[in-house]
Amino acid sequence: MKNFTEDQLYARLEELTANISDLDEVAMAQIQVRLDSLTKPQGSLGQLEHLAKQLGGIQRTSNPKIQKKAVLLMAGDHGVVEEGVSAFPQEVTPQMAYNIMNGGAAINVLSRQANAEVFLTDVGIAFPIDGNIIHQRVANGTQNMSKGPAMSRHEALQALLVGAKVAEEKIREGYNLFATGELGIGNTTPSSAIVALFTNSSIEEVVGRGTGIDDAGVIRKRRAIEKAIEVNQPDTTNALDVLAKVGGLEIAAITGSILQAAASNVPIVVDGFISTAGALIAAKLAPKSVAYMIPSHGSVEIGHRNALAGLGLDPVLNLNMRLGEGTGAALTFYLVEAALHILEEMATFADAGVSEKSI
Amino acid sequence: MKNFTEDQLYARLEELTANISDLDEVAMAQIQVRLDSLTKPQGSLGQLEHLAKQLGGIQRTSNPKIQKKAVLLMAGDHGVVEEGVSAFPQEVTPQMAYNIMNGGAAINVLSRQANAEVFLTDVGIAFPIDGNIIHQRVANGTQNMSKGPAMSRHEALQALLVGAKVAEEKIREGYNLFATGELGIGNTTPSSAIVALFTNSSIEEVVGRGTGIDDAGVIRKRRAIEKAIEVNQPDTTNALDVLAKVGGLEIAAITGSILQAAASNVPIVVDGFISTAGALIAAKLAPKSVAYMIPSHGSVEIGHRNALAGLGLDPVLNLNMRLGEGTGAALTFYLVEAALHILEEMATFADAGVSEKSI
Repeated sequence: MKNFTEDQLYARLEELTANISDLDEVAMAQIQVRLDSLTKPQGSLGQLEHLAKQLGGIQRTSNPKIQKKAVLLMAGDHGVVEEGVSAFPQEVTPQMAYNIMNGGAAINVLSRQANAEVFLTDVGIAFPIDGNIIHQRVANGTQNMSKGPAMSRHEALQALLVGAKVAEEKIREGYNLFATGELGIGNTTPSSAIVALFTNSSIEEVVGRGTGIDDAGVIRKRRAIEKAIEVNQPDTTNALDVLAKVGGLEIAAITGSILQAAASNVPIVVDGFISTAGALIAAKLAPKSVAYMIPSHGSVEIGHRNALAGLGLDPVLNLNMRLGEGTGAALTFYLVEAALHILEEMATFADAGVSEKSI
Repeated sequence: MKNFTEDQLYARLEELTANISDLDEVAMAQIQVRLDSLTKPQGSLGQLEHLAKQLGGIQRTSNPKIQKKAVLLMAGDHGVVEEGVSAFPQEVTPQMAYNIMNGGAAINVLSRQANAEVFLTDVGIAFPIDGNIIHQRVANGTQNMSKGPAMSRHEALQALLVGAKVAEEKIREGYNLFATGELGIGNTTPSSAIVALFTNSSIEEVVGRGTGIDDAGVIRKRRAIEKAIEVNQPDTTNALDVLAKVGGLEIAAITGSILQAAASNVPIVVDGFISTAGALIAAKLAPKSVAYMIPSHGSVEIGHRNALAGLGLDPVLNLNMRLGEGTGAALTFYLVEAALHILEEMATFADAGVSEKSI
């Protein structure tokens, strides 16, 4: 991706967003008819019914199927850790990357349970790394956004298109349900900046404890974001400008994965706070991409509520989690599959000889 | 159970409640140490960590295991349907019982996905029924609670002990994770009465649309509950009196299943509104039983919020469901298993060479 000019990369992004369509209303209407014929009060399976329709609308069929499931896990580091915004040292990013490659992280455990694969991509870890990781590093971490742009516009476009490329390859290999995931010490800080800018929230409303900073750390984190916004003056009418100035390499890759999934008619489950920041950027670049997003859990990270509200998404899991890695999204795969089992396997009122509603 | 006197049945209930102990704090502390050694910020898996500890505390081991899972589905009818409180005719109770026996209901679909078995018990259907159902009918439905007690105290005790007996048999067969479930046209009406009485809620706060009644139906339903409370004057200091006068046969059986599970150190996932009403009765009869309950989803049925709050339970699923049958509880099995996978399979900081928190 480094051999392309900024203009070439921008043209590729425009092509991607132009390929995102509305969902198939005909397929969704057919699924609604089927759901209403099943032996249950109409609408009584709530979000499971909504998911069944959404899957059909995305796949453009009244008979949607899940073939293979993947967690697209994007890793990147953050120059802003210099400001003391994280409870863990930056070395934890590569250490956790190795832990994931070795199958020992929470996302490995939950993906095995879900019968899903984890694909870990180095979009911008700040340390040397080898092993079973997709090597697509754009930079050795971002710059400190409190002192200048986190990335150049060229880097942001590259990182976004890395995410798109990984998604595209996995779609070619037959994966048709994705989860977003991320790894990167310090990444709640740029996420908070993005969410504040795109949801008209105050910095206080969207800055939480991340992996577990104390009160003094929260104050440093707020100050780092205030400085980043002062110094960079991101243009909120231009999502790419916001992404480059106060975002992250892995956040850009998440945005790209979502846009590619949407352009390829593949649903993507959005994990927690950082992933939702990436999803907000995707929504700004291509508003139609929101219809391809499936919400997962409501994070403990306080800004998540506003971030989800900014997308009009309501989380299906309430587990007080705050881990990232795609863990909440991987747990949600089960509910997506439940929706399709309901659609396929339940008896109809006619089949079962059950009386319909009388009053 | 019909051959026993009321005093004999009451003695059996007292024996059951006397056998319910506090959870094993030592096992829970051991699990906490293990959870805190795993490669994640402490506490960041939220309710999954809580579930792992709860399972260990219930099974009295630092290494809890799930063997076999069962949905204990209790069916009963309600004389109060005479008051026009349900959207579906009473014949739907046996029709849906047959649908469940034939594997076509939502609970069958979700139990198959969860690799769980459904055991359907006739505690008091108002129509003849045969087939693959546990025959433990106490009465042909309850009486109309708007005109007098729904059940005699003798019947309520019998129905409660039916639930306990079914649970006991399944525990003997090796099942060690249960879900509550129910089937019974009209059963949100007695459930609303129980929840109002035990949570100091107004009738307006706890009467919802059930399977889908209209505004006039909601008014009839409220009036039926008001009349039931006026006519019967249930004694809220006596849970058995409340259960008999304004409860239901399947609700009593749910209470009994919960008490037996707790007495046998088996966790039980509590489904939606009706199941939570049964759980409230269990909590009044044996406050320690609450520690054995696992919450599932937050129902659309408006009284569910107050019912859960009355037990201090927070739902893990937010799916806007209102179907019953144990569907929300069956979906929750997956999360319970996720908690145990996390406990067993994640790498520790030491194993993985990951740095711990630095600030």
